Amino acid sequence: MRVADYIVEYIRERNVRTVFMLSGTGSIFLDEAIAKADALTCVCARHEAAATLMGTGASKLTGDIGVAVVTSGPGAANAMAGLIDAWADAVPVLVLAGQVESRHIDRSARSFGIQGYNVVDCVRPVTKYAVVVDDPVQIRAHLDRAFHEALTGRPGPVWLDVPLDVQAAEIDPAALAGFEAPAPEPWSNGPAETAAVVLDELRGASRPIFVVGQGVRQARAQGELAALVEHLGVPTVCTRLGYDLLPYRSEAVMGQGGIRGRPHVERVMREADLVVSLGASLSTGLVGEHRDAFSPQARVVMVDLDADQFDRANVAVDVRLRMDLLGLLTEMNRQIEHDRTGLEWPQWRNHCRELKEKSPSAATLATEPINSYYFVNRLEAQAGRDAVFVVDTGSAYYVTGQTLEFNDDQREVTSAAFLNMGAAVPMAVGASFAAAGARVITIVGDGAIELNIQELATISDYERDIKVFVLNNGGYSSIRESQDALCTDRVLDEPAPLDFRAVAAAFRIPYHRLSAVDALDDDLAALLGPPGPALIEVICDSRQKLMRPAAAHDIRTHDGVTIPTRC
Amino acid sequence: MRVADYIVEYIRERNVRTVFMLSGTGSIFLDEAIAKADALTCVCARHEAAATLMGTGASKLTGDIGVAVVTSGPGAANAMAGLIDAWADAVPVLVLAGQVESRHIDRSARSFGIQGYNVVDCVRPVTKYAVVVDDPVQIRAHLDRAFHEALTGRPGPVWLDVPLDVQAAEIDPAALAGFEAPAPEPWSNGPAETAAVVLDELRGASRPIFVVGQGVRQARAQGELAALVEHLGVPTVCTRLGYDLLPYRSEAVMGQGGIRGRPHVERVMREADLVVSLGASLSTGLVGEHRDAFSPQARVVMVDLDADQFDRANVAVDVRLRMDLLGLLTEMNRQIEHDRTGLEWPQWRNHCRELKEKSPSAATLATEPINSYYFVNRLEAQAGRDAVFVVDTGSAYYVTGQTLEFNDDQREVTSAAFLNMGAAVPMAVGASFAAAGARVITIVGDGAIELNIQELATISDYERDIKVFVLNNGGYSSIRESQDALCTDRVLDEPAPLDFRAVAAAFRIPYHRLSAVDALDDDLAALLGPPGPALIEVICDSRQKLMRPAAAHDIRTHDGVTIPTRC
Repeated sequence: MRVADYIVEYIRERNVRTVFMLSGTGSIFLDEAIAKADALTCVCARHEAAATLMGTGASKLTGDIGVAVVTSGPGAANAMAGLIDAWADAVPVLVLAGQVESRHIDRSARSFGIQGYNVVDCVRPVTKYAVVVDDPVQIRAHLDRAFHEALTGRPGPVWLDVPLDVQAAEIDPAALAGFEAPAPEPWSNGPAETAAVVLDELRGASRPIFVVGQGVRQARAQGELAALVEHLGVPTVCTRLGYDLLPYRSEAVMGQGGIRGRPHVERVMREADLVVSLGASLSTGLVGEHRDAFSPQARVVMVDLDADQFDRANVAVDVRLRMDLLGLLTEMNRQIEHDRTGLEWPQWRNHCRELKEKSPSAATLATEPINSYYFVNRLEAQAGRDAVFVVDTGSAYYVTGQTLEFNDDQREVTSAAFLNMGAAVPMAVGASFAAAGARVITIVGDGAIELNIQELATISDYERDIKVFVLNNGGYSSIRESQDALCTDRVLDEPAPLDFRAVAAAFRIPYHRLSAVDALDDDLAALLGPPGPALIEVICDSRQKLMRPAAAHDIRTHDGVTIPTRC
Repeated sequence: MRVADYIVEYIRERNVRTVFMLSGTGSIFLDEAIAKADALTCVCARHEAAATLMGTGASKLTGDIGVAVVTSGPGAANAMAGLIDAWADAVPVLVLAGQVESRHIDRSARSFGIQGYNVVDCVRPVTKYAVVVDDPVQIRAHLDRAFHEALTGRPGPVWLDVPLDVQAAEIDPAALAGFEAPAPEPWSNGPAETAAVVLDELRGASRPIFVVGQGVRQARAQGELAALVEHLGVPTVCTRLGYDLLPYRSEAVMGQGGIRGRPHVERVMREADLVVSLGASLSTGLVGEHRDAFSPQARVVMVDLDADQFDRANVAVDVRLRMDLLGLLTEMNRQIEHDRTGLEWPQWRNHCRELKEKSPSAATLATEPINSYYFVNRLEAQAGRDAVFVVDTGSAYYVTGQTLEFNDDQREVTSAAFLNMGAAVPMAVGASFAAAGARVITIVGDGAIELNIQELATISDYERDIKVFVLNNGGYSSIRESQDALCTDRVLDEPAPLDFRAVAAAFRIPYHRLSAVDALDDDLAALLGPPGPALIEVICDSRQKLMRPAAAHDIRTHDGVTIPTRC
């Protein structure tokens, strides 16, 4: 059996059902093995960065490993650019890259053979495992190790570089050695003890909040979290990757916090005297620097399975609990059933509920040109119970993060740590294949869509049920706002927007245009009715500002000047 | 003065006139400094990889440093993907990247602050110099060092990561320390002695050839090379990056060699008993492995300013001469004037001339659907004396490499070591700004153009005189040929081509379509008449094969199976 065929068989046995790729001579035997594997869907992207982002989008939705296959040299270089999102957002993605033949690899050289270079050393800083598979009989061990690293602990991307000769080499699968994963580091305390610690902290608090992040989903503990929040009513702030964990209509759910979050959440975070962080990374974007977002007197309890997170957090962590969230939350729910004493905060809960109720509702902003907050509000109302929102950066990111409610089973996929401009279209393709029939709603700005615009053709080729809403506000509006805020001098001219009707024709995808606010509900109903691809241009108010909570931090120059920023 | 303003003033003093960029919050003070600098043209790309490739394209044309400015995080990641071409093809490019504030940088973390990551460690393996500018008063030293490394010895890309606080810091330019470049390593022999060595080798040979590469242009020694080849008549083979050094109509000029070169050159290379390599890297693509492309008895003399090239070459080098080519070629021309004894090879020269004359001419292939060789032949005839051809990969690369003649002052810009699919459109933008009014002719396949299709908008925005010819042969034809050659099983479906008329409308660029072979000359004359942007779809024969010289090498698997490849 060829190594390339073994790889395909291996990933299929690990339940990989879709591979995102762009073929090439450097990966030709991998490509061939994939093409002939019957129960593997092969999605041909139009750019290798997009292939990686498709794998990332698929994995962000399911937590399963996303797989991208690319060729050597420029293919690998492009794929590399799509990788940092998986690295920072802790997404398990496997890149299988072609490489020139082993004997041409010379790491001191600028290029190897034809279309090869030292990509492994370039991606090592942004992957959990990156190697050249230089011996065919090591293939099983490398795959074992790659899957282990990608999925264990804090997830992340891994990279296997497979030279052409290794791809084509014959091996005896029965004779291959595997990789023995090291025994996991034991928890310092059991779930019962850890749950008791957290509940004691809660008992000692007057104004507790939860901050919940994607670690909850990665632990497959959403149900336990929802039960806990429902039982205790602790006001709960979401990170962006934890945004769709809980329905906004649930009284205790405050919505997204941080510099791109809902304005009232800023106050909830500032007033809390206890912060219990559950699978959230307390990044700069969420909590600012040091304790900017929290009161200096607040106590911070952090639960994470990765102890490195305790020191990384932008908040000095008072209580560090390395623990699996499924075990912890299950145990907390169990202990509460036995003893609710001291776990009531009626005044604080009322206060937070009132702040939430008083926060402005997007439903009232029915102006023309269309206000993007109003648009997202109306879109969600008609999107369907299991819709997957795939959101790009810039104003699309702000507006959705301050408007979407996830009251049914909707989900969100986005680039949180990096705000990777243009990533939404390829991530939508990945999410669509991973979502098994669910509708995908993509929201992207007219500037950002250009960075992966070629993937509209992939949506069209594979006839995915993906509606791409382009918020046309005349360019890079959030960068424009930053420039307005920070620059005293003349700023750069912005590029002119594209002709989106022609864009849709070019990539063979149906086009719609929304501009009348009165007809918005009817228009949305009509175009969301039939399944299939569509590009919908939404003519938005280019002068509309974004809601910005207080600045998370200022820029302090070396000479002591402080420049305020809300970017 | 702010560091950002100092950087802009510095690059202007180093004769940088154009900056390729995409703005962002992480580079906001750099962006502002560029926007307000009057004598600096700022070209806003639509993707950061394209910005880097524009800098690369500009530099490939002129040899001057190309400059790209990008934001932190995803901007830097995209720019990184555009960098490997400059690395492998030895192009001086400076990337100025934004970065989060210095105090947020923590190289052990997956991300820094908002939209920052450890890009410097990722790009170090593919740059000559890559640092974070962490101290404002070091800015001059870092810029000095970056320019020195980029332009000295074998050129290449360099990367300065400039944190936001450093961009905004006030400095006193007069107080900045510079970088003292080390004294260059002395040549082991002077130009006169080295010239004598080469001429003695030529005197001892019966069938000498020159192999000429871009090192000649980097040494600004084109005129001396042309005089030498004219005087001696030594049959001269070009690498791809040396392809436009000499006019094909010159009797001794054989054209491009290697696996994507002209078929008759393969025989010239194989029959030679002496190879004098002048500024060429003797890559796998040119000479195959070991001595595959040359006779085992041939003697190889290599002249390069970088001694590392002698060991890197895929040919065992018999005589290694580390020398500046301008000095060497000037001296050779001088010595020949005094003494031509033993420097005549009439029989060999006749033989090579006959091989060249007998090689098939593209001018005879006037079939319909249009043969791409015929198309390139007709296009060059009407392109204009100073046209710059910017050529993409795949079949466009093969066909132009076997057809273009450069009989006037035409130039070529392409991705040689990496065959970077889709790089031509952004490189054309860079070349157009660097070419000061010359017309740019871009030739790209219908599959490849998608990878940077968004830059058609940049061509349109800046009204560049760039004609983009899309060879529509129904997909990735060269990959298809590789699959036909190598794969026994079913291969992947190819994606459907775009609607190029709509593509042109989307990006606001005039569209033309060429399909009638009889009208080709008239149609080309009409559309090449007026200056300005145009997208021209050329309907080519999708069943047409490429001319492939003998396989450069085979793929040998670990278990000894040999798979022939001509890819």
